[in-house]
Amino acid sequence: MNYKSDIEIAQACTMEPITRIAQKAGIDDRYLEQYGKYKAKINYSLLSENDAPDGKLILVTAINPTPAGEGKTTTIGLADALQRAGKKVVAALREPSLGPIFGVKGGAAGGGYSQVVPMEDINLHFTGDFHAISTANNLLAALIDNHIYQGNKLNIDPRRITWRRCMDMNDRQLRSVVDGLGGKSNGTPREDGYDITAASEIMAVLCLADDIDDLKARLSRLVVGYTYGKASEQKPVTAGDLHAEGAMCALLKDALKPNLVQTLEHTPAIVHGGPFANIAHGCNSVTATRMALKLGDYCVTEAGFGADLGAEKFLDIKCRMAGLTPNAVVVVASVRALKHSGGVSLGELDQENLEALERGLPNLLKHVSNIRDVFHLPCVVAVNAFPSDTGAELQLLQQKCRELGVNAVISEVWAKGGEGGAALAREVIRLCEEDNSGFTVTVRNLKVSAGAGFIVALIGEIMTMPGLPKCPAAENIDIDRSGRISGLF
Amino acid sequence: MNYKSDIEIAQACTMEPITRIAQKAGIDDRYLEQYGKYKAKINYSLLSENDAPDGKLILVTAINPTPAGEGKTTTIGLADALQRAGKKVVAALREPSLGPIFGVKGGAAGGGYSQVVPMEDINLHFTGDFHAISTANNLLAALIDNHIYQGNKLNIDPRRITWRRCMDMNDRQLRSVVDGLGGKSNGTPREDGYDITAASEIMAVLCLADDIDDLKARLSRLVVGYTYGKASEQKPVTAGDLHAEGAMCALLKDALKPNLVQTLEHTPAIVHGGPFANIAHGCNSVTATRMALKLGDYCVTEAGFGADLGAEKFLDIKCRMAGLTPNAVVVVASVRALKHSGGVSLGELDQENLEALERGLPNLLKHVSNIRDVFHLPCVVAVNAFPSDTGAELQLLQQKCRELGVNAVISEVWAKGGEGGAALAREVIRLCEEDNSGFTVTVRNLKVSAGAGFIVALIGEIMTMPGLPKCPAAENIDIDRSGRISGLF
Amino acid sequence: MNYKSDIEIAQACTMEPITRIAQKAGIDDRYLEQYGKYKAKINYSLLSENDAPDGKLILVTAINPTPAGEGKTTTIGLADALQRAGKKVVAALREPSLGPIFGVKGGAAGGGYSQVVPMEDINLHFTGDFHAISTANNLLAALIDNHIYQGNKLNIDPRRITWRRCMDMNDRQLRSVVDGLGGKSNGTPREDGYDITAASEIMAVLCLADDIDDLKARLSRLVVGYTYGKASEQKPVTAGDLHAEGAMCALLKDALKPNLVQTLEHTPAIVHGGPFANIAHGCNSVTATRMALKLGDYCVTEAGFGADLGAEKFLDIKCRMAGLTPNAVVVVASVRALKHSGGVSLGELDQENLEALERGLPNLLKHVSNIRDVFHLPCVVAVNAFPSDTGAELQLLQQKCRELGVNAVISEVWAKGGEGGAALAREVIRLCEEDNSGFTVTVRNLKVSAGAGFIVALIGEIMTMPGLPKCPAAENIDIDRSGRISGLF
Amino acid sequence: MNYKSDIEIAQACTMEPITRIAQKAGIDDRYLEQYGKYKAKINYSLLSENDAPDGKLILVTAINPTPAGEGKTTTIGLADALQRAGKKVVAALREPSLGPIFGVKGGAAGGGYSQVVPMEDINLHFTGDFHAISTANNLLAALIDNHIYQGNKLNIDPRRITWRRCMDMNDRQLRSVVDGLGGKSNGTPREDGYDITAASEIMAVLCLADDIDDLKARLSRLVVGYTYGKASEQKPVTAGDLHAEGAMCALLKDALKPNLVQTLEHTPAIVHGGPFANIAHGCNSVTATRMALKLGDYCVTEAGFGADLGAEKFLDIKCRMAGLTPNAVVVVASVRALKHSGGVSLGELDQENLEALERGLPNLLKHVSNIRDVFHLPCVVAVNAFPSDTGAELQLLQQKCRELGVNAVISEVWAKGGEGGAALAREVIRLCEEDNSGFTVTVRNLKVSAGAGFIVALIGEIMTMPGLPKCPAAENIDIDRSGRISGLF
Repeated sequence: MNYKSDIEIAQACTMEPITRIAQKAGIDDRYLEQYGKYKAKINYSLLSENDAPDGKLILVTAINPTPAGEGKTTTIGLADALQRAGKKVVAALREPSLGPIFGVKGGAAGGGYSQVVPMEDINLHFTGDFHAISTANNLLAALIDNHIYQGNKLNIDPRRITWRRCMDMNDRQLRSVVDGLGGKSNGTPREDGYDITAASEIMAVLCLADDIDDLKARLSRLVVGYTYGKASEQKPVTAGDLHAEGAMCALLKDALKPNLVQTLEHTPAIVHGGPFANIAHGCNSVTATRMALKLGDYCVTEAGFGADLGAEKFLDIKCRMAGLTPNAVVVVASVRALKHSGGVSLGELDQENLEALERGLPNLLKHVSNIRDVFHLPCVVAVNAFPSDTGAELQLLQQKCRELGVNAVISEVWAKGGEGGAALAREVIRLCEEDNSGFTVTVRNLKVSAGAGFIVALIGEIMTMPGLPKCPAAENIDIDRSGRISGLF
Repeated sequence: MNYKSDIEIAQACTMEPITRIAQKAGIDDRYLEQYGKYKAKINYSLLSENDAPDGKLILVTAINPTPAGEGKTTTIGLADALQRAGKKVVAALREPSLGPIFGVKGGAAGGGYSQVVPMEDINLHFTGDFHAISTANNLLAALIDNHIYQGNKLNIDPRRITWRRCMDMNDRQLRSVVDGLGGKSNGTPREDGYDITAASEIMAVLCLADDIDDLKARLSRLVVGYTYGKASEQKPVTAGDLHAEGAMCALLKDALKPNLVQTLEHTPAIVHGGPFANIAHGCNSVTATRMALKLGDYCVTEAGFGADLGAEKFLDIKCRMAGLTPNAVVVVASVRALKHSGGVSLGELDQENLEALERGLPNLLKHVSNIRDVFHLPCVVAVNAFPSDTGAELQLLQQKCRELGVNAVISEVWAKGGEGGAALAREVIRLCEEDNSGFTVTVRNLKVSAGAGFIVALIGEIMTMPGLPKCPAAENIDIDRSGRISGLF
Repeated sequence: MNYKSDIEIAQACTMEPITRIAQKAGIDDRYLEQYGKYKAKINYSLLSENDAPDGKLILVTAINPTPAGEGKTTTIGLADALQRAGKKVVAALREPSLGPIFGVKGGAAGGGYSQVVPMEDINLHFTGDFHAISTANNLLAALIDNHIYQGNKLNIDPRRITWRRCMDMNDRQLRSVVDGLGGKSNGTPREDGYDITAASEIMAVLCLADDIDDLKARLSRLVVGYTYGKASEQKPVTAGDLHAEGAMCALLKDALKPNLVQTLEHTPAIVHGGPFANIAHGCNSVTATRMALKLGDYCVTEAGFGADLGAEKFLDIKCRMAGLTPNAVVVVASVRALKHSGGVSLGELDQENLEALERGLPNLLKHVSNIRDVFHLPCVVAVNAFPSDTGAELQLLQQKCRELGVNAVISEVWAKGGEGGAALAREVIRLCEEDNSGFTVTVRNLKVSAGAGFIVALIGEIMTMPGLPKCPAAENIDIDRSGRISGLF
Repeated sequence: MNYKSDIEIAQACTMEPITRIAQKAGIDDRYLEQYGKYKAKINYSLLSENDAPDGKLILVTAINPTPAGEGKTTTIGLADALQRAGKKVVAALREPSLGPIFGVKGGAAGGGYSQVVPMEDINLHFTGDFHAISTANNLLAALIDNHIYQGNKLNIDPRRITWRRCMDMNDRQLRSVVDGLGGKSNGTPREDGYDITAASEIMAVLCLADDIDDLKARLSRLVVGYTYGKASEQKPVTAGDLHAEGAMCALLKDALKPNLVQTLEHTPAIVHGGPFANIAHGCNSVTATRMALKLGDYCVTEAGFGADLGAEKFLDIKCRMAGLTPNAVVVVASVRALKHSGGVSLGELDQENLEALERGLPNLLKHVSNIRDVFHLPCVVAVNAFPSDTGAELQLLQQKCRELGVNAVISEVWAKGGEGGAALAREVIRLCEEDNSGFTVTVRNLKVSAGAGFIVALIGEIMTMPGLPKCPAAENIDIDRSGRISGLF
């Protein structure tokens, strides 16, 4: 077929200057810091100096872990559709990690006709937030080792350092290393390792911090290791003990400011924060979401992957900490995916198969009923349309949803952009304009004691440092003399 | 005494918007990419699309390796003085490495009343150039190890990989490491190490590249290691063999663009590229210097440290490769430093001592005569003034210089900014407006075969990865809730 | 109390020349190789050149893993008691590992008045068997790494080498290492580690080999690692592929010969082979047991630790491979140990407690019934006597055993040597002179495919390289100028 | 040609029982500890309990570092020749390291018809001396790491441990390692390495020790590393600080006793101690030499390699420490070797070339004159005969030596054993029966402060851990079912 690639679609877009997008979003120029012509940072003081009422919060989630970008595509497409419907809307999205870009082909700025742009910049260095986090993370590591080298007043046991270095790169070679080799002047030999930057606790901290003071306080609580001694005598050592929080915070001062870009249809999008979904809450920053709520009548945001994991984390961690309540939840599904869970092999997904669809449906319905009955939130199912879907299949899916009191609507945002999300937008607006039924999360700014403020339980299989595949995407990425990048996805 | 610190002076300055500075320098808006309100990148296409004649090139060098920033201070002060003298002037400077900022107290954006601003940003992430270089360097490293992991078609011998990883941090712990540990799925155990980003060959490449095509060609020639086999059978492996140059170049696309900031007196300053003086040519980028020459009537630039090392490298490497010819050379000296080389201890430098000064003078005179007689360039000595200098001492110094046919003038730029450099500016203008005497470096774009295109011979003692001191500056750096950074220097 | 230490008792013994002990055992001088005056090796050709009928095989086992040496003490004491009873008897024992001697206090040559001597020599280098095994093990390791270094014709994947180095030392520092560091001329960096020599597969191989040819064949089958490639393409690499078996076997030629020493009462004892009980069969060598059976009317031998583990391994591995059938099994127990399993704390073991004894007894009875009913072997319980045992307790223990058709007799060999084992010897003789009931293990020389010929499943917690304790016994070991060693235990 | 290999010649020899050799040497049975039928250890108490006068000391040295065994061959042949001349003679030789046996083909028990036997045993484990040294060395290493692991009371800096592990193996993979990996329970990560056992300081200590007390004192002085702290605060840590010397000495008790074997012609040979010539004194033990002097009228011994290095070390270190004075020095040379140093290529050595011989001769004459004029010792040149030597060449060589007052005699010991050394023996006897000229080394038992008592300056190129060659000798070594070893050399 003659599909255009994501990057071709993105490069064909005539972007509006970021100053225009900011105006559209109602951002005063004094809060804006341009990064080139199409990106900007928004000062977080906008939040404290603006007392407009919050808009509606729309949460997009999916039935299963899906290839990167799928949830994002629907989120972006819905935002464009709501804008077409005359609403003032701001999307709030995670920013992508640079490292994985060079691995398996696959973007993280949306897809098809539902993307944020400039997609090359967003996928590469963007405004440097990940670099700032890597640097703050590694400054702390350097201060730990330097402290030991310079006499080790705090009595840190080098074998019990828990703070790892990080790099924004898929690099399995760095998962487990011995550093400090080469003699006394090169530090102290010890076992160490690197995580990808998205997995750094500093990323989680940044996404939850309100402002500089809150960030600094969280940074100073980061536990980096333990002192020498028997189990009973060991004491935790923190970044604060090393007087590291000021310098780290200085490094993070700009990374704390949310980034403004636009969708292909010029809807304002705030793209900020990108913690690993499998080890942290996996959502964009609290500040970004709050800002989008403040600026738009509608704020559309995404929740990590999988309604079971992503939505729960969004609701349990981010909403509790930030005092947020979604006005509607969009659960993304597709007939093909449900038939696949119903037992149909990939090669036979093109044929109508109502039995398989029926076998696969509980997978979706369970998520929907969780949203409705556990979290008491209004809900709509967005069915990603494929040409092979038959009328009977779509009818079955819609009927089963309706039995739970939920509407299922067709979404064609990947192929058609905002236009393809018209039905979805209508249903979302309907849900938001109805009265909401007894959602009770009202805790506000629950304070927690260390760093990011939640416990991460690493289960065996989770890799915090990915590797590159046999044919790294990096080999096909190129840039011509005019600066035009190709092969990005 | 009641001296203000560098950062206090810098923060007291009311900067002009970077768009105004660009206008002053004659940079059309279409070449400008803002990074916040006071920094911008200038597209290198400005060079090829502008056929104005070059201005005068002034090279500032010093008699000895001096604390970071000294050469820079005179360069900046002279630029301000030339502006006060009514000249259209653009300074061209190296950008500082972020890593050392957290080590020994001491800045790299000039000092006193001769600084470039915003100094915090310039000293921290600036516009992300160093991060882009680190990432390109480490992407190449990840591709090497991934290639071996995925079957090693190129037959790379892991023990003969010469490409090291890098980080923009003073971190001795990383000088020598073993990575790839933890079993087969974590790569291949091998000895590896990190250099500070300024020492990466990519930094050198970036500083010499003309444009994207030239950069990509240089990147593809980078040698990363050798194949298995006896000495006679070994073949070098290049970044090109790994198809890495396209992705690396995409990462470097913005780093290739020179950065525009301003001095405290609003003189335009192009700050770009910062290779380690002790392993590379140690000057700012060729593109930055060429751009400053194109935009200003006067371009003032600095040459690494020490006239013996820095100026020679500037003249031998950068000028040959870029076809540049300085119109005047400023050699920075001070009475105190000369008395110190003449044998006076630090505690007794306040007392007049003509004998010691005479013993120390040959140190300066040798440099001066090199400039005059070997390179055949017009020369002036800038004497950094101190309150303890006596009239007799200054007279002796000036007389000895005059015997070589060179004037020595007092410079007070650290304490007074451009005003303190008036005499120096006058002498520089005089030298430039005279006819020059037979300088013969006319080689243009000498092509060389690999990467940066020169051989680096690492002598035992040179560290390519610094360490932090006992009391790292990082411990005193802080930022308040309004975003104001303190303790930077 | 005024107990003598083991080493004091051993040094007070006037040993007979080893030539006299050999005569007593009926070993022709041509089979004997002296190692000093009190140790000798016996050539294994004695076995093939001697067609005398086998004696009776007595297996000593214990109810629980006990401190090293406990099973050995009863074995030695029973041998001495049988000799006092007029029988021609030869004990067959494991030889101790040198490494653990320097760790926790505790010997491995028996205890009290039931020891083999010269105990210092037996506990230290003895006749060099462990050294020969270490050397053969490490020669193989050196040949593997040298093969890779010299071009790696076999295409061995350094990350998949399974052959570890070994050392006869408790040294936790060597459990996990990276070797081959320091540049190309020092080999290939890889993850490696050391086991204690007793855990080397070569020890297991040596203990099962019949003669030089059998040993060489087993050595050549040792798997040392795997070739490069996907799982499906990997091939195992053996010692035979490296042509290592000849040199390894040359190193082991003397280690293959059983060692002859004497008990404190001058009973001949063959001490040979000492594989780790927790990773191999844990018994002395097949050759040693066969030789003792050939030479004595009675051969008393021990089975690792714990009847459940040790006896089963003896019967399942060693007896099957070697075609051996015990004529009687001695299960060692004590009232104190049974009361302890019955819930009595260590401090209260001195008080009579019949209820606790009854609660602890099933532990013993289960073992006894296994021997009787699963393996169908005659059985006797040897009760290690302690002064605190009461008549009622002993009566209860004996009655419960009798109910299973097994006699329990008092053993005082630790305190009294052979005299203290008189009752045990009588019961053993009675069992052996009765007809045996249907023991059916008759498999002879079951051939297996690789090295030792059985699969070792290492479960998480098993350490194959022990560490030293806080106060290593080594600190108290000394030797005076006359060569007398003290502090050994 | 049909030459027999060394091992074939050795195995064809009918050895006499070692008890007979001991009788011949006048060693009372109470000092003898047999190791099999043809090896024995001699208790060092023989020395203190025997007041016979010392015999004559003959030192054999060579003009150049020669393949292992060359000096040994002449030493053994001369001993046999002296025995044929009716003298009571005892050879004193170094014992070979087991490790190199598996590397490049080449023995260390003499060659041709001048060997010590049983050569297989001597070349393999012999009487376990090297194993005892390895074990003592590695026990000390284990105690150091255990001390640190258990709380590090002595405050040892793991980065400043100078005590290395050792192994009697050519194994380049172990030269440089990181051990203590795998987490807190596996010790402390640190850089470490292995030397071959012959290079252990314990070998040097053992070769210089008089008795157990002296050995223990030397062991306790061994420096193993330094404490934490600035250079001025660091304190050396010794084996004595770790209470290691007692256990180490217990391990070395038998290794301290010299070993007795025989030559092919049944001359007694004491073979004991084998320190690396390139890092220690490189001679056999002082005890062995003293014992040979006490037992024989003539003691023939060898001095490392190269008269320049070996003889000087013998005379400067061993003779000074032990109070020994050679009565005659034999310098081994050959016409071929001298022609080769004179510029003749290997392929043309068969042709007479008097000019080349004359050019090569100064190499020999310088050594000879050193012996005569610096050390004032009687000297004879032994010319290793080759079929290609011409009369004119031999005449020239002899004439030049005679001009220095030294006789040069033909030696054919490799091809003919003792018979081939008749002329050499005659000259040696003549020199010894003359009066000696003013040799003044009379220092007796010079005491020194640490361990071996001399400073070892390791120069760059010296490897203390050899590697194996491309085709390790180990691949060709084999043993048949009768125990006969082949392929050893």
